[in-house]
Amino acid sequence: MNKERFEAFTDAVIAIIMTILVLDIHLPTDDHSMRAIIAIAPSFLAYIVSFTILAVMWVNHHNLFLHVKTVNHKILYTNIFLLFWATLLPATTAWFGSDIYSSTAAWLYAVNVIVYNISFSMVRNEVLKINDRLKHLYITEIASLILNIIALFIVFFWPPFIMISLLMDILLWSIQPVVRHKG
Amino acid sequence: MNKERFEAFTDAVIAIIMTILVLDIHLPTDDHSMRAIIAIAPSFLAYIVSFTILAVMWVNHHNLFLHVKTVNHKILYTNIFLLFWATLLPATTAWFGSDIYSSTAAWLYAVNVIVYNISFSMVRNEVLKINDRLKHLYITEIASLILNIIALFIVFFWPPFIMISLLMDILLWSIQPVVRHKG
Amino acid sequence: MNKERFEAFTDAVIAIIMTILVLDIHLPTDDHSMRAIIAIAPSFLAYIVSFTILAVMWVNHHNLFLHVKTVNHKILYTNIFLLFWATLLPATTAWFGSDIYSSTAAWLYAVNVIVYNISFSMVRNEVLKINDRLKHLYITEIASLILNIIALFIVFFWPPFIMISLLMDILLWSIQPVVRHKG
Amino acid sequence: MNKERFEAFTDAVIAIIMTILVLDIHLPTDDHSMRAIIAIAPSFLAYIVSFTILAVMWVNHHNLFLHVKTVNHKILYTNIFLLFWATLLPATTAWFGSDIYSSTAAWLYAVNVIVYNISFSMVRNEVLKINDRLKHLYITEIASLILNIIALFIVFFWPPFIMISLLMDILLWSIQPVVRHKG
Repeated sequence: MNKERFEAFTDAVIAIIMTILVLDIHLPTDDHSMRAIIAIAPSFLAYIVSFTILAVMWVNHHNLFLHVKTVNHKILYTNIFLLFWATLLPATTAWFGSDIYSSTAAWLYAVNVIVYNISFSMVRNEVLKINDRLKHLYITEIASLILNIIALFIVFFWPPFIMISLLMDILLWSIQPVVRHKG
Repeated sequence: MNKERFEAFTDAVIAIIMTILVLDIHLPTDDHSMRAIIAIAPSFLAYIVSFTILAVMWVNHHNLFLHVKTVNHKILYTNIFLLFWATLLPATTAWFGSDIYSSTAAWLYAVNVIVYNISFSMVRNEVLKINDRLKHLYITEIASLILNIIALFIVFFWPPFIMISLLMDILLWSIQPVVRHKG
Repeated sequence: MNKERFEAFTDAVIAIIMTILVLDIHLPTDDHSMRAIIAIAPSFLAYIVSFTILAVMWVNHHNLFLHVKTVNHKILYTNIFLLFWATLLPATTAWFGSDIYSSTAAWLYAVNVIVYNISFSMVRNEVLKINDRLKHLYITEIASLILNIIALFIVFFWPPFIMISLLMDILLWSIQPVVRHKG
Repeated sequence: MNKERFEAFTDAVIAIIMTILVLDIHLPTDDHSMRAIIAIAPSFLAYIVSFTILAVMWVNHHNLFLHVKTVNHKILYTNIFLLFWATLLPATTAWFGSDIYSSTAAWLYAVNVIVYNISFSMVRNEVLKINDRLKHLYITEIASLILNIIALFIVFFWPPFIMISLLMDILLWSIQPVVRHKG
């Protein structure tokens, strides 16, 4: 299995998602005032969160596959599963961004990110199966999952909280190495 | 002929199609209720089907070209023909997704996938012409074609059936190796 | 100068243009009859023409740069000029496709393709300057230019003629090698 | 850290932004006259400016990383910061293009380009930290920053001036080498 083609394909999908996210920031063509800029602020905040989630995931994906020489079909299919949830982010981000006080939209957005994080762990598990010099660090995943599940409750009271919890989630995923060498 | 550039170009086109498919899932900006999520369920199902078709095709394309050292103009042009039908999928998927009970839309969607499958077989044929250690496995293609033609009749009575038949079609294309070594 | 990165960038831009062209084929979400399919036939024909123009150009670009070891700044900038005119194709194709009997739209579409063809010749010229074993074949360019200029007059009487002339143009660019070895 | 994957990802994002910029040039589907072409002229001018800014940045990015063997996490994250501001360009360009006489839109567009230029300098700084044979050329940056800050004042009186100042800015960034070998 060709690792380069696998990485190039993954990168292309992530690059496209990160870029088409912006298509949902609509500055009105008939209002060119400061008010129009303020009106899109919630969309813009949601955009920053999703863009950063994807960027951190790309860095982690990149670091993970530095340790990999070849990819098998299981890695291929779990990675496609991961990309599937990533491609939904523009839709759920835009919906949440159009009303950050809707708990339904916040909840859908959070579920999308949670399943997306779990998919990343699945890809990592498959990678570790063929590389016995690395060990999984479950701390990030468990902390991230607990954080996100708590957030699912809080958003029923104050939906914009999801942006704070996701920024904390991003921090968790970016400060931790994705794998550690056994020693 | 440069195989790497050929693969990178193909991957870029498939990656873009898989990602812009989601642009047709429109969550309404003025309704943030569970009803809005339920309303887009048909679009979402159609999205899953098309995303999976493209993903399985990409894996098959990848496996097929592992056996290839160089590409000629015939492979190049049949591959462009394949990509042409792939680029139409977002349009036919969105039309079907906007009314999964329309037999015309289901029929157009099915025809798109059928021609797309046939194009993939054409690419495979051209690859086998320059690689005599591999033999074509016609079983997948014939089974897939029969299945899809039967589906073309059934959709006149119950259009959503096309999603079931396409999921079966995907299964056919994913469990079978695309080529087998002679021996 | 890194030829691989130059080619990858060019391919990404062409792949994206070929794929977003389809975003302008709008099947109505409130009409799922055969009539709706027939109504988009002109857009679809224009789509086929532009998709093929870009595909043939990509093959020619690919063939041209097989002979190149390194790219200089002049090649880089003429290539960006070429990509600029390519990125406009989705807009001019969609406008023409929305009314194939408008001579203004046909004329704008034709001008876009003509400038695009001239840009390709400019890139080829820069490549030949650093590769003295190849000679330019002006026959294609001159025939293509004459054909397109004649078309500019005919479209004032029958605008859809531009599709016929562009298909002839595509044929010209695809049967001819882009360069020939001196000998 | 894998430099090739880093470059490929950056190129994909820039290629996509350069191509989706055109999605904001809307030729009306119900008016196929010369008037419609003239009406989109401001959008088209803004499109040319943003396309050129991205193209020149890509060439500079390309030249900068020719001198780099490996990328570290700081380069990775400052580069993602750069790409973030690049992905906003389609939105700010489209808003400015829809009314080039709006000083608010011109101001937002200018601020986007200024932060984007500063981000590029940040990436360059990180690259120079790990390559002590190169020295930073601050002349371009300082000249560019002064030019753009002056422009921020002028646009309050005549908003379209931003296009002139950005074209001058592009010229600055394209004639200067991004780094110079110490000697």
